Amino acid sequence: MSILSKTLQNELWDVAHALADAAGPIALQYFRTSGQDLENKLTYGFDPVTVADKAIEREMRAILAKRRPDDGVLGEEYENSTGTSGLTWVLDPIDGTRGFISGTPTWGVLIAVDAGEGPVLGLIDQPYTGERFAGGFDVASLTHNGHTRDLAVKSCADISDAIAFTTFPEVGTDAEGAAFERVAGQAKLTRYGMDCYAYALLALGQIDLVIEAGLNAYDIQGPIAVVEAAGGIVTDWQGGPAHAGGQALAASDKRVHEQALKLLNS
Amino acid sequence: MSILSKTLQNELWDVAHALADAAGPIALQYFRTSGQDLENKLTYGFDPVTVADKAIEREMRAILAKRRPDDGVLGEEYENSTGTSGLTWVLDPIDGTRGFISGTPTWGVLIAVDAGEGPVLGLIDQPYTGERFAGGFDVASLTHNGHTRDLAVKSCADISDAIAFTTFPEVGTDAEGAAFERVAGQAKLTRYGMDCYAYALLALGQIDLVIEAGLNAYDIQGPIAVVEAAGGIVTDWQGGPAHAGGQALAASDKRVHEQALKLLNS
Repeated sequence: MSILSKTLQNELWDVAHALADAAGPIALQYFRTSGQDLENKLTYGFDPVTVADKAIEREMRAILAKRRPDDGVLGEEYENSTGTSGLTWVLDPIDGTRGFISGTPTWGVLIAVDAGEGPVLGLIDQPYTGERFAGGFDVASLTHNGHTRDLAVKSCADISDAIAFTTFPEVGTDAEGAAFERVAGQAKLTRYGMDCYAYALLALGQIDLVIEAGLNAYDIQGPIAVVEAAGGIVTDWQGGPAHAGGQALAASDKRVHEQALKLLNS
Repeated sequence: MSILSKTLQNELWDVAHALADAAGPIALQYFRTSGQDLENKLTYGFDPVTVADKAIEREMRAILAKRRPDDGVLGEEYENSTGTSGLTWVLDPIDGTRGFISGTPTWGVLIAVDAGEGPVLGLIDQPYTGERFAGGFDVASLTHNGHTRDLAVKSCADISDAIAFTTFPEVGTDAEGAAFERVAGQAKLTRYGMDCYAYALLALGQIDLVIEAGLNAYDIQGPIAVVEAAGGIVTDWQGGPAHAGGQALAASDKRVHEQALKLLNS
């Protein structure tokens, strides 16, 4: 991170917030509409692509083309570009499309900047609740309707005290689901259905574990930046880097992270 | 309902809103605190009682003692009183305590008035998102940050197009869980973890089914009033009244309700 000047860091934050500012109003135009367009595209077992998703990513790419033309872009909806700056914007216009279509305010706009070895900054933005979780370059904050507070994970010495989240009870493959169940069986409480919002809750100090599988890079880079900035840990299920996607294990406390890793691999 | 005068109806609405107005700020004092008090009371498998729950119910009961002294009160936390008016206030200060403790904005303050055969009005209030869902006496509305819109369920001709919600993947007993799985297996999409908020989404026209078991009267009377006012159906799993608690099946459309009933009992 230290290779990026303070000026560049500020510029990247400005652009990241501009992207989120542009995304929110578009997402809210489509949120909680009766939208047959949305519903028709939902096929069970397949991550649905919504009209909103595409409209937001187009807008974000237009902003990046103007303000950061030399950076790469990795998005959910359109072709990737590598850029020449060594920086890549990693975008998920609407993470949690099933929640979006169902009307739950737990989806998010995910924005991250990858400097080559994972995200150096990230945002999880929830336009309906007016919450923006930010992490990177010494920032770890939640801004809610104009008020900003610091993010910090909570401590958790043992998995028997942990609150664990995952998006679906049927996590990934059968083997992955069984591995998740080994962790859930030891946790104090397991909850479902939050998508990226679960990582935001972990960064807020509310919960202890988020365990997912089958992710893409754009699903996890924003969450990694926010969780790590708040003092948490995100790895894959082997304890290695998670920023390329696949499996993710996010933890509030390294003790619980270690215990969960062991259970996932036992 | 017609036995209650318009004046009385207005009075009941005024009091119901006064209760919700009093409850919200107390709930928010305790929401997203590090609160060891809250965490210590959470035992997995047992619905946790929080400090906030009790503080809110005390305040609501104080308001009712002053403004509606002849009505009964059925609450989650304190002793029931039957009253002499034939009306009973049915109160769940925080429905979805597990979500509350986890920091998700999907719990709610539930308020209903039971005139003897179920609720004649109900509120589902979510103070963090600023949403108040109201149903009863020709009202079916969502007020969000000062803006009010009508609630109306959506149509859904077949369960293969239905979005189904329940709070836990492990619904009720093993037999109840298996019955739920028969419905979920036919639905387009199944989501978890929303508690009372799922009924609000059904009344909003976002989803089609909510299926739960093991409920108390105070968990379901507010949701029944809101869903029915929006044009939906709430019964138990045999098609009978659900307002006393136990099993609940809420549906947007009578066709999907019938299909779900058959699957639950097949």
